[in-house]
Amino acid sequence: MSPQNIYDNSEFYNGYTQLPRQVYGLDGAPEWPTIRALVPNLNSKRVVDLGCGFGWFSRWAREQRASSVLGVDLSSNMIEKARKETVDDAIEYRIEDMDQLQLPEASFDFAYSALAFHYVKDFQRIVGTVYNSLTPGSHFIFEIEHPMYLASKEPRCVDQEGGHTSYVFNNYTFEGERRRDWFVAGVLKYHRMLSTTLNSLIDAGFTIEHLHEYSPTEDDVAKDTTLDKTLHHTLWLIIKARR
Amino acid sequence: MSPQNIYDNSEFYNGYTQLPRQVYGLDGAPEWPTIRALVPNLNSKRVVDLGCGFGWFSRWAREQRASSVLGVDLSSNMIEKARKETVDDAIEYRIEDMDQLQLPEASFDFAYSALAFHYVKDFQRIVGTVYNSLTPGSHFIFEIEHPMYLASKEPRCVDQEGGHTSYVFNNYTFEGERRRDWFVAGVLKYHRMLSTTLNSLIDAGFTIEHLHEYSPTEDDVAKDTTLDKTLHHTLWLIIKARR
Repeated sequence: MSPQNIYDNSEFYNGYTQLPRQVYGLDGAPEWPTIRALVPNLNSKRVVDLGCGFGWFSRWAREQRASSVLGVDLSSNMIEKARKETVDDAIEYRIEDMDQLQLPEASFDFAYSALAFHYVKDFQRIVGTVYNSLTPGSHFIFEIEHPMYLASKEPRCVDQEGGHTSYVFNNYTFEGERRRDWFVAGVLKYHRMLSTTLNSLIDAGFTIEHLHEYSPTEDDVAKDTTLDKTLHHTLWLIIKARR
Repeated sequence: MSPQNIYDNSEFYNGYTQLPRQVYGLDGAPEWPTIRALVPNLNSKRVVDLGCGFGWFSRWAREQRASSVLGVDLSSNMIEKARKETVDDAIEYRIEDMDQLQLPEASFDFAYSALAFHYVKDFQRIVGTVYNSLTPGSHFIFEIEHPMYLASKEPRCVDQEGGHTSYVFNNYTFEGERRRDWFVAGVLKYHRMLSTTLNSLIDAGFTIEHLHEYSPTEDDVAKDTTLDKTLHHTLWLIIKARR
């Protein structure tokens, strides 16, 4: 079965490219300052960026003196634009399906992934691949949609309680496919319980070093009012692990 | 401020003692088989049982050949009954407030706590206390109410979706006191985000080894129909960590 390649759907792509984080890059993502504070010194490190999109992180890593960056993404739209935006021989972009991805052993010193793994069907496989591709002591930081947010089959908000919207929560313990209408109908994502994500990392050999459950601040909401509905739950989960 | 001592309230206590897990002990708790599978070999180990209640786990640990057990609980009702039920000089029960608890350094080889830490105000403090009381390489297993379950200020279920009840979720990112009506009105618990719990362990020096998010199976629901409402979310979080 060929993988979902929604980012090469022109309707989706046209919507997606208007997101603040795609227009303004890393600084357009309200959770970026938190992630940035977790990233270790990249000086002379070989970096892999999984689901690199337009290459915003890949280029930033080079600004931080990474010696090389490999950015992979399933979308040829994304990779094409990433290549156009990049004038740097030390960054290589490659079209790859993360459910099939192979990486050479012990060839990277830092692995990064932003909002891509919830599209990956076999999380245990990609985690094992990343683990083997890293040198001992290396860090792996990734961000996914928070499973509390992704769990519900028909996500919806209900009436205000205490001034804020509540979120209707179900199906958390039923892992697997979730369909979401996001620019187009039925974008396919995979829900995993938080314990599944963490146990997969631990079972692969990683040590969990830090978790961050992002929730918008009042400042974030002032900049992007659509975040208002999510003040009381958490949208994104950021995990830092060490090989 | 004196700590809440709800277990010494007779109305609460009379209700609480009718719970299957208090009538039938460990086997009355549907999550016990999972916890049991995570417990390391206790042979010759010195065990501390935090929030020991009637001493079910303390006595079980001795059946597993633990060399000694210290059980602590705030409730004199609990400790009195635990002492009555126990004929074993190697088990000591002590009335202690876990927010004030002090333990001697490196004097235990296994620490356990079931459904007690959500009553503890200062989680970072108790985690540090447990860490220092354990010998290097020792395990710490504890169970708490799942933060997804405890988060909401006014927890309630809504209409069936797909045959199951949904849970209305809010206030997850707002940590602190929660009041619950459970046998009596306004039992005080403390909500912490899952990341706060895990980061507290990691910052104290623990390595996270396993997480389990309990949800009732169909079998569990057949035995206890009140669990039906919780099929789609998760009631209890079990964490195994290593010093």
